[in-house]
Amino acid sequence: MLRKIKMRMKTPALVANPNILEMQYAVRGPIPQRAAELRRQGREIIPCNIGNPQALGQEPLSLFRQVLGLLENPAWIARERQLRQLTGDGGKLLEEHRIPESVLSLCEETLAKAHTGMGAYTESKGMEFIRQAVAEFIDRRDVVAAMSGVPADPENIFLTNGASQGVMFVIDLLIASSQDGIMIPIPQYPLYSAAIRKAGGVQVNYYPDEERGWIFDRAILDEAVEGARAEGVNVKAIVVINPANPTGAILDEASVREVIEFAAGNDLMIIADEVYQENVYGGEFYSFTSVLGNREVPLVSLHSISKGFIGECGHRGGYFEIRNPPLVKGTGNDFSTYLTKQASVNLCANTPGQLLTYMMVRLPTLDEDIQRRIEDQKQRILQDLHDKAVMIRDAFAEMDGVECYGESGALYLFPRLVTLPVGTTDLDYCMALLEETGLCTVNGSGFGQRENTHHLRIAFLPPVEVLARVLPEWVAFHNAYVRGGGPYR
Amino acid sequence: MLRKIKMRMKTPALVANPNILEMQYAVRGPIPQRAAELRRQGREIIPCNIGNPQALGQEPLSLFRQVLGLLENPAWIARERQLRQLTGDGGKLLEEHRIPESVLSLCEETLAKAHTGMGAYTESKGMEFIRQAVAEFIDRRDVVAAMSGVPADPENIFLTNGASQGVMFVIDLLIASSQDGIMIPIPQYPLYSAAIRKAGGVQVNYYPDEERGWIFDRAILDEAVEGARAEGVNVKAIVVINPANPTGAILDEASVREVIEFAAGNDLMIIADEVYQENVYGGEFYSFTSVLGNREVPLVSLHSISKGFIGECGHRGGYFEIRNPPLVKGTGNDFSTYLTKQASVNLCANTPGQLLTYMMVRLPTLDEDIQRRIEDQKQRILQDLHDKAVMIRDAFAEMDGVECYGESGALYLFPRLVTLPVGTTDLDYCMALLEETGLCTVNGSGFGQRENTHHLRIAFLPPVEVLARVLPEWVAFHNAYVRGGGPYR
Repeated sequence: MLRKIKMRMKTPALVANPNILEMQYAVRGPIPQRAAELRRQGREIIPCNIGNPQALGQEPLSLFRQVLGLLENPAWIARERQLRQLTGDGGKLLEEHRIPESVLSLCEETLAKAHTGMGAYTESKGMEFIRQAVAEFIDRRDVVAAMSGVPADPENIFLTNGASQGVMFVIDLLIASSQDGIMIPIPQYPLYSAAIRKAGGVQVNYYPDEERGWIFDRAILDEAVEGARAEGVNVKAIVVINPANPTGAILDEASVREVIEFAAGNDLMIIADEVYQENVYGGEFYSFTSVLGNREVPLVSLHSISKGFIGECGHRGGYFEIRNPPLVKGTGNDFSTYLTKQASVNLCANTPGQLLTYMMVRLPTLDEDIQRRIEDQKQRILQDLHDKAVMIRDAFAEMDGVECYGESGALYLFPRLVTLPVGTTDLDYCMALLEETGLCTVNGSGFGQRENTHHLRIAFLPPVEVLARVLPEWVAFHNAYVRGGGPYR
Repeated sequence: MLRKIKMRMKTPALVANPNILEMQYAVRGPIPQRAAELRRQGREIIPCNIGNPQALGQEPLSLFRQVLGLLENPAWIARERQLRQLTGDGGKLLEEHRIPESVLSLCEETLAKAHTGMGAYTESKGMEFIRQAVAEFIDRRDVVAAMSGVPADPENIFLTNGASQGVMFVIDLLIASSQDGIMIPIPQYPLYSAAIRKAGGVQVNYYPDEERGWIFDRAILDEAVEGARAEGVNVKAIVVINPANPTGAILDEASVREVIEFAAGNDLMIIADEVYQENVYGGEFYSFTSVLGNREVPLVSLHSISKGFIGECGHRGGYFEIRNPPLVKGTGNDFSTYLTKQASVNLCANTPGQLLTYMMVRLPTLDEDIQRRIEDQKQRILQDLHDKAVMIRDAFAEMDGVECYGESGALYLFPRLVTLPVGTTDLDYCMALLEETGLCTVNGSGFGQRENTHHLRIAFLPPVEVLARVLPEWVAFHNAYVRGGGPYR
């Protein structure tokens, strides 16, 4: 003990970057930290604090993993071909495990394009053939925009370690002084507030209307930007998350258009986080590039392999595209030039993540038999997610004073806790819920919310049988908590 | 054309983060950019601008790739076992391609530990069992330090997307104001100057002595820190790259001890970049942790899967350890707490990179037959690298006024160009060398160098037969260039 104290005295306290000290990230904050402690003590924890599907049993697409395994071991491709010539017992054995010829040749084609292999640094922005494939994916998805003559440009596409890294690049480059601000929705995914804080800029909140299903209109955006300008903030960009994290709201075409008009009228860059574009469960997704058409508004749109039906979070793959990159004052270069410089200091995104991004964007163009297999797996996964969202909503109906507005997009529900006992917060509630049931959620205050409201975010990812067991426990906990005045009375 | 101009006028120029505008990273700078242009035109380029072994034909360790392929496809493990029961033709076929049982069971053990698999986000700092294995690796390597009672602590180990990400975390957190400075050697790996510039801090240069083989002593360090303090700079840390990039110098134990004494005397954190610790070709590597023992100096040491004999650059795996993390002023927490927060905003490092890091640190403990195979491949790769360094040095001897001081550590030579024609720079020289021979190197000014000196950095990675062809061309180019007064006369 004496030795410990002596150590501390010898190492003087250090003044560290205040922006990092103040940065908050609730998705890995106090509730998940307590959950980790409980898990170490042997408690069963159901981690709904983060959109991490495979941690909760979602199967990876077998196609993706087979391809990755073969790309890491090119010699295995030839071996597979040799083995399929086996007859007798060997042939029978292999029949069950056969990797289709279409997959083997896809791997060979891919290796021919990725000529330095998986173990070499790639171009800073990512392998060129993958950026080309991403551009084709965007044009295929946004068919109208592409037809209007504005195709995606592979040189303005960046492959990143998950979409998060792209957000960091863009926000770091945008914030040039402590008066520079970026508009974000409240509630928001706390990566945005953290990135703005880290860069030393101003977070400018706008408030989608909860009672109208977390939709927002021009008046809401105008109010936010005018309020910030009145305080001397130089607003430079607006972040839109669509489908929304944490609320699940899905923007209709008119709303997307309204954001574009608003950005055009206020000289703002749009940062469109579209990583949940596949998680619409029957609703319709309108990409910002498709609605943008040939309007000259700077637009960054982000996508990832972590969400949708793919759920490859651990592989950290993603991309962003920038359209109409603005000129950077005092230089002859545009914004894209300095994004490239940032990428180059980081050398490149990891190659497995790059290749899985390639698989994601190539999916719609693969052989029919591969597509059929994928389509089945995809529909099963998306149906299962939607079923689970419905199960959880049904449980909310049995809880006193829980209102869950809006659609079930993305991977989350963000119910409002209307009748929390006086003096308790959603943080108290989520902590008690964790202790009582093992369910790890995140308090609404971690995402931002209107004053005097309380929420929580739950990722609807646990297996149906786990939900069937834990939801009644949650209902019982909830009603006891709100009726009994909370555990602290 | 008119349309293009109209676009530009509609999008007003944007004031971007000046720190990013000013950041420099020559390893992906003008020479490599010109090389990429030439390659697109069909020219053969020999990329020696970057330590990217597999891009130049170095084979990956087959063990590493087999394990990764099986971890991505756990079902293949059982299939391998079934296949090995085949007799007849199938059995014979498989004999050639057999994956040893020891590898299969290593994969199973690993999957049992990595229980959420490759597709899930891991703990922010990386999977716990891997951090544990890293700690054991460090203690095994630094046997004396571990025996003195200061073992590595898995909670102070962070798995990152390559070592670069760790450098960014540490420097971003250290720089709290524009007067905060970090000492770096000149020449240096430009990640350090870029990270300091990006964070808005001051780069404080110290100058290892070229003529003494790029070695430095206490007087050199004292001069640098005193000079900076006289200008009001608050010096907070010293970066040491050992073995050195770009000079290849290897520190002896006394020099490591000298840095520790210096840091202790000046309240500095040491940032020890030890990613080339395997690239010593017969010399001896002294890790900072081993020499530190139980001294209470804050020390960050970094390692990576990208260099050594592994060369898995594309997989972006690495780790850093922090010892004696200082308390952070105004908080009850230490430096490590805020490194964790930064890691958590980035969610986690990519899983293939984490697992290859695990393989790297587990190597010395694997089954004997695996070890024997690896040992052969390792010695072959390291011998080959050393042979190539010698070949290039021999070529320097035939060039007028080229001096290459110091040892051949790391993956680089950093020769001095003593007799460049008046009015030309090493940038001119490297550009001309590229145009003439296709050899892509980096000008010494990209790493920093003493005024009025000129150098270049070459990674000694091209295959021997490529070197045998291009080195005579280089010698001819060089002597014509310096005798003829450069191509610009």
